[in-house]
Amino acid sequence: MSTASDEDGQSNYRVIGTRPVRHDGIDKVTGRAVYGADVTLPGMLHGKVLRSPHAHARIVSIDPGRALALPGVKAVVTGADLPQAQDREEAVGEGVSNPLHLSQNVLAHEKVLYDGHAVAAVAATNPHIAAEAVDLIEVRYEVLPPVLDVRDAMREDAPVLHPDLRTRDGETEAPDRPTNVAAVTRFERGDIDEGFAAADEILERTFDTAMVHQGYIEPHNAVAQVNPDGQATLWCSTQGSFDVRRLCCDVLGLPLSRLRVVPAEIGGGFGGKTTVYLEPLALLLSSRAGQPVKLVMSRSEVLRATGPTSGSHIRVKMGATRDGRITAVESELLYEAGAFPGSPVQMGAMCLLGPYDVENLRLTGYDVVVNRPKTAAYRAPGASNAAFASESVIDELADRLGIDPLEFRVRNAAREGTPTAAGPRHRRIGCLEVLEAARNHAHYSTPVTERDGPIRRGRGFAMGFWFNAGLQSSATLAINADGTAALVTGSPDIGGTRTSCAMMAAEELGLPVDLVRPVVADTDSIGHTDVTGGSRVTMATGLAVHDAAQDVKRQLCERAARVWKVDVDQVRFADGGVESLVEEGLRLSLADLADRAGRTGGPIVGRATVNAQRNTGAAFGALLVDVDVDVETGRVDVTRCTVFQDVGRAIHPAYVEGQMQGGSAQGIGWALNEEYVYGEDGRLQNDGFLDYRIPVALDLPMIEPVIVEVPNPAHPYGVRGVGEVSIVAPPAAVANAIARATGARMNSLPMSPPRVLATLRERCASA
Amino acid sequence: MSTASDEDGQSNYRVIGTRPVRHDGIDKVTGRAVYGADVTLPGMLHGKVLRSPHAHARIVSIDPGRALALPGVKAVVTGADLPQAQDREEAVGEGVSNPLHLSQNVLAHEKVLYDGHAVAAVAATNPHIAAEAVDLIEVRYEVLPPVLDVRDAMREDAPVLHPDLRTRDGETEAPDRPTNVAAVTRFERGDIDEGFAAADEILERTFDTAMVHQGYIEPHNAVAQVNPDGQATLWCSTQGSFDVRRLCCDVLGLPLSRLRVVPAEIGGGFGGKTTVYLEPLALLLSSRAGQPVKLVMSRSEVLRATGPTSGSHIRVKMGATRDGRITAVESELLYEAGAFPGSPVQMGAMCLLGPYDVENLRLTGYDVVVNRPKTAAYRAPGASNAAFASESVIDELADRLGIDPLEFRVRNAAREGTPTAAGPRHRRIGCLEVLEAARNHAHYSTPVTERDGPIRRGRGFAMGFWFNAGLQSSATLAINADGTAALVTGSPDIGGTRTSCAMMAAEELGLPVDLVRPVVADTDSIGHTDVTGGSRVTMATGLAVHDAAQDVKRQLCERAARVWKVDVDQVRFADGGVESLVEEGLRLSLADLADRAGRTGGPIVGRATVNAQRNTGAAFGALLVDVDVDVETGRVDVTRCTVFQDVGRAIHPAYVEGQMQGGSAQGIGWALNEEYVYGEDGRLQNDGFLDYRIPVALDLPMIEPVIVEVPNPAHPYGVRGVGEVSIVAPPAAVANAIARATGARMNSLPMSPPRVLATLRERCASA
Repeated sequence: MSTASDEDGQSNYRVIGTRPVRHDGIDKVTGRAVYGADVTLPGMLHGKVLRSPHAHARIVSIDPGRALALPGVKAVVTGADLPQAQDREEAVGEGVSNPLHLSQNVLAHEKVLYDGHAVAAVAATNPHIAAEAVDLIEVRYEVLPPVLDVRDAMREDAPVLHPDLRTRDGETEAPDRPTNVAAVTRFERGDIDEGFAAADEILERTFDTAMVHQGYIEPHNAVAQVNPDGQATLWCSTQGSFDVRRLCCDVLGLPLSRLRVVPAEIGGGFGGKTTVYLEPLALLLSSRAGQPVKLVMSRSEVLRATGPTSGSHIRVKMGATRDGRITAVESELLYEAGAFPGSPVQMGAMCLLGPYDVENLRLTGYDVVVNRPKTAAYRAPGASNAAFASESVIDELADRLGIDPLEFRVRNAAREGTPTAAGPRHRRIGCLEVLEAARNHAHYSTPVTERDGPIRRGRGFAMGFWFNAGLQSSATLAINADGTAALVTGSPDIGGTRTSCAMMAAEELGLPVDLVRPVVADTDSIGHTDVTGGSRVTMATGLAVHDAAQDVKRQLCERAARVWKVDVDQVRFADGGVESLVEEGLRLSLADLADRAGRTGGPIVGRATVNAQRNTGAAFGALLVDVDVDVETGRVDVTRCTVFQDVGRAIHPAYVEGQMQGGSAQGIGWALNEEYVYGEDGRLQNDGFLDYRIPVALDLPMIEPVIVEVPNPAHPYGVRGVGEVSIVAPPAAVANAIARATGARMNSLPMSPPRVLATLRERCASA
Repeated sequence: MSTASDEDGQSNYRVIGTRPVRHDGIDKVTGRAVYGADVTLPGMLHGKVLRSPHAHARIVSIDPGRALALPGVKAVVTGADLPQAQDREEAVGEGVSNPLHLSQNVLAHEKVLYDGHAVAAVAATNPHIAAEAVDLIEVRYEVLPPVLDVRDAMREDAPVLHPDLRTRDGETEAPDRPTNVAAVTRFERGDIDEGFAAADEILERTFDTAMVHQGYIEPHNAVAQVNPDGQATLWCSTQGSFDVRRLCCDVLGLPLSRLRVVPAEIGGGFGGKTTVYLEPLALLLSSRAGQPVKLVMSRSEVLRATGPTSGSHIRVKMGATRDGRITAVESELLYEAGAFPGSPVQMGAMCLLGPYDVENLRLTGYDVVVNRPKTAAYRAPGASNAAFASESVIDELADRLGIDPLEFRVRNAAREGTPTAAGPRHRRIGCLEVLEAARNHAHYSTPVTERDGPIRRGRGFAMGFWFNAGLQSSATLAINADGTAALVTGSPDIGGTRTSCAMMAAEELGLPVDLVRPVVADTDSIGHTDVTGGSRVTMATGLAVHDAAQDVKRQLCERAARVWKVDVDQVRFADGGVESLVEEGLRLSLADLADRAGRTGGPIVGRATVNAQRNTGAAFGALLVDVDVDVETGRVDVTRCTVFQDVGRAIHPAYVEGQMQGGSAQGIGWALNEEYVYGEDGRLQNDGFLDYRIPVALDLPMIEPVIVEVPNPAHPYGVRGVGEVSIVAPPAAVANAIARATGARMNSLPMSPPRVLATLRERCASA
């Protein structure tokens, strides 16, 4: 695959690498973009969900009678209204999550498994009646003891969430007994006993991370309209309209062609909008009521009942030689799945040592259900937890060996040919280039200044790895009669992918990017397209766009050949038009050919579909961070922050930088402040943004992004996914900075003032 | 091309020919379908158009000052705000109508040319303020004498509408002088002098038809949102979203990719919604005001200022031999274009003798501007006027020769190989089959019963011809993961084409039709697709659907070959799945293959684009009608009505029958009641449905449709266009019935009571 670089490696691209204003920019800054909650239909009802006040309980009975009697109430639904286990056919499609669990999460069937678990839903003529009606539904619970901590949940005497659940373990025969351990995952390579025997220094540490939420500003929402003939339309905020369609049809037992999902604009997702909560409820209520129904969550509902990411407990044992080669790593990763199986522990294990070439390793992951909301994806799911552990251990180990921690990482860095945890070897990657970029940056060499009074300053560094996803995408590219173009994809645009995709089409066709109009279509209007996630859109949907543009160019060549009455191999596409290879100077521009499309065979439309699994290129990122620690209060301030990342090729550098900055900011929030606080009773105590503190602009310095470009050889423009890896390094980088500022190693997230203070005091006490 | 018929000619289709409920049916009968006027946007302004009270005047000045000063008024625009002649680049694209005339029709530049001509437009915070503001705009006119009749307009001393207009005449050198004759069109074949010399009987008659309106129930509407970056979206009721886009961009001087046109559901069009009136105004006002703007016409505005069809004056001279062979026809057709050039006179001439094989003919058409609204298309544009003349003359000529008029038509009927007026010869057509179907129908052989008192009963018959259009269409067909399908086209659905297109996809893929979800996409989401008109959608868009399905089937075969690790030529698609040609019984269903799409290469999406100009098949229709004429009042009642039509292949017979009935009903309204009534001052006097009388259910008997199927050899299913030809025969059929009832030949439409009475009295006086 070509990358348009000249001999000096300079890019010859005309559009790629520039920074045009995004096509949806004006709509968004002027408030005109239509988000899910903006959708309003004639005769629309408003829904409200009744949620469990208990973390663990059996539902004895639900009586909706009084609610149904309230004037204005049009429908009440409970778990009994969903197809039950015995009614379910085998799930259709590839990679489908367990539809019964999904159904039980959407509406509890027999048990409630976490504070906020949906129990019933109401549709009424206005939101106030709906709220009143929800309070009139009488639910009798038999309250059960909850289990909230992953280690507690693994005890033999722990309360069991799912009596039918058995451990899924690919290697050992798991015992046939009730358990909260849904799955055990292993990655093993080499011989760790030999590896540890060869080590001069061995370090073993344990780490805890808290359950944290993605903190997207827009709450979940859904507007559904189901006709009496079963044809349904759903508007919602989602990262994956095709996933929403499949999951809703799984839960409700519908053929896919019955449901059209229209993806609204999305006010943040970060992985949290890749599954369904309200969507099947809105459909079910609309079907019952015979009118459209809108459901919108409150912030409290978002925090209590959507999918945050797993808290975790991780043990890492690492050995290294005196000259700084890692010889062996052993790790156990325990991840909270929430109320139903499915934590990102496998991905965490795959990322734990992603930046390094380690010969001997044994990584074991445990997926454990607890009485918390079912976790969902959150930016590089599982990787930040793992890197907090591994990058802290590496930092401390380097210290012990007297080797500069960055140099230590360079000596062990993954490179082309290094096997990944899952097996396949890396193609060309930029791990070393990212490390070098950090080492060469002014931030790295600037001395750390001393501070007065109780403030200690320190600088920390950590690496992050994310493998990036490929998956399926579709694109169609239609040429207008004046030679401008319309580009249709099915990828909801979170980070500017309308524009990055349009830029690739513009590059190929020789058009200004503002003459390519990108559209994010609904599920009926474009071929299957997987979720906007896994940092895959600019890479994989971009690949489909590139291929669709080749399809267009092929057709343009055929049309020109027809006009000139020559064979198609006597023409070629170049510089935004078709030129003759036999008659010099003979040329038809895109606009010329578009103008003649009708007479030469009809409209010109290119299309492509891809499964980009073999086109992904791994992402490496690093964070260099200076912190001020107030040793009297435990407060930590980030004072300088530089993020480095191999992006392959930055199609639109400003949006790439935005991803790098955004991921860093979220990672710092995770590091310092964010956590789900549950009481003994299993009820969430901080269900709002006042108590669940995400960083705001005042909390952070300017985050300086440093783009490193090591083109992905499996992509025509060299694109790697850029959206996630920047969240991986921050918790460890901040912990390493705190260690250098104070000498105290933090092993628990968040590193909030009370916890920092406690660690400092412990250290004083033990000193 | 195959048509799935067995040896007896019986259809083997599984879906085609059945009568499923349309996919949009529930939405439409429950009021949920979104029509243009239903679109509401946040911050939306309401617009109103100031219209000329004069039929012909020079605009001396327009002062919007007082309107702009009215609180709530956000923008006022006049013709001066549109790009003027000198600013216009050459129009881009194929078959573009004159953009300057279009612009002048949208907003008068220097002159107003008809009562209701748009002069200015206002956007305000509500419709009442907009209406008030329109009245505050001060326009000074210099009133000029109008010319309303086509023959008056051709006089040398007639007022001239466009001082720059010169006659376009392809054959003779037209004089360089101001004129109202925009164009002269000729069709000539054989030698008419010889033809008339060979005739035993020659008849010459003149006919007049009134300007009539399509009478769609939904008035024109447009909602526009233009962003500060120039990106615009337009929602409107239209038969052709791509045409609206092109015409708006022509008028406003925009690249096509700046504007997205979202076609709303359409409450009737019949050709009248193929151009723009409010659409550019809404865009211009939104651009000025910086807010979305909605414009909706009143019924009066629809009648005064949209595009009815031409009134006309037609002379026909026809000669025939004693044994009933037409030897020669000479005709002059004078059609009102309205205020700007462009009547359907050429199409009228092409259809005048469509059902017949005439060796010697000379047809001359005149396109004449008059001070009436610019005409637009109306169902088989121009053909009903022409057939009223030719089918009346044929009927009278047959009478004179003592030959049964139906038998006379059979003797002269067009058949395979007969040249059309425009030159090319017919492929297989169903003209004779339609005549035979009428002759064999019980209605034809049932005696006409006598009536008492002043009522005279008579039966009339006439033929109609329409050539049908081809044009360009695009389709994409995506296979869902469960083997259901989504079908995207760009053809607004007026008569059930969502379903007819879905049926063809279902037929090809072996799916039930309700598992194919058809979508009419906006202009950004599908390749170029020409207007829903010319009876082309089921034929041409259907062809694209058929081709897209072949593309899908090709891909399915490739996937199956990949799964079985065999060459693609060792498999074939049959019965809704792919089967192995080498291993008996080895088979993968569509659902199997859809389920594996990801693993076998990504989503499966077919696409096709067509220019169907060579795929059209001509349509022939006939109407047999019984009327009761009250000789004391002149009132004519249709008491029995049977419509015959060669539809090629009825994809969905119920919707085909609906087209046949609808066209007949409109043709009867045109025959009996409808006309634009202008005063001497050129002002329209019947600008509402109380005074402009279209037939309602009580006015008509059940219209019995008789489908004749002579497959179009140029279409894979044999489809011919079915939407238009049924409007062609009715005026002549009713006139022929009145002649048989009363002996009086009507030569002027409408045959309203006063006109019938006058003709009967004239006849008595001359007898």
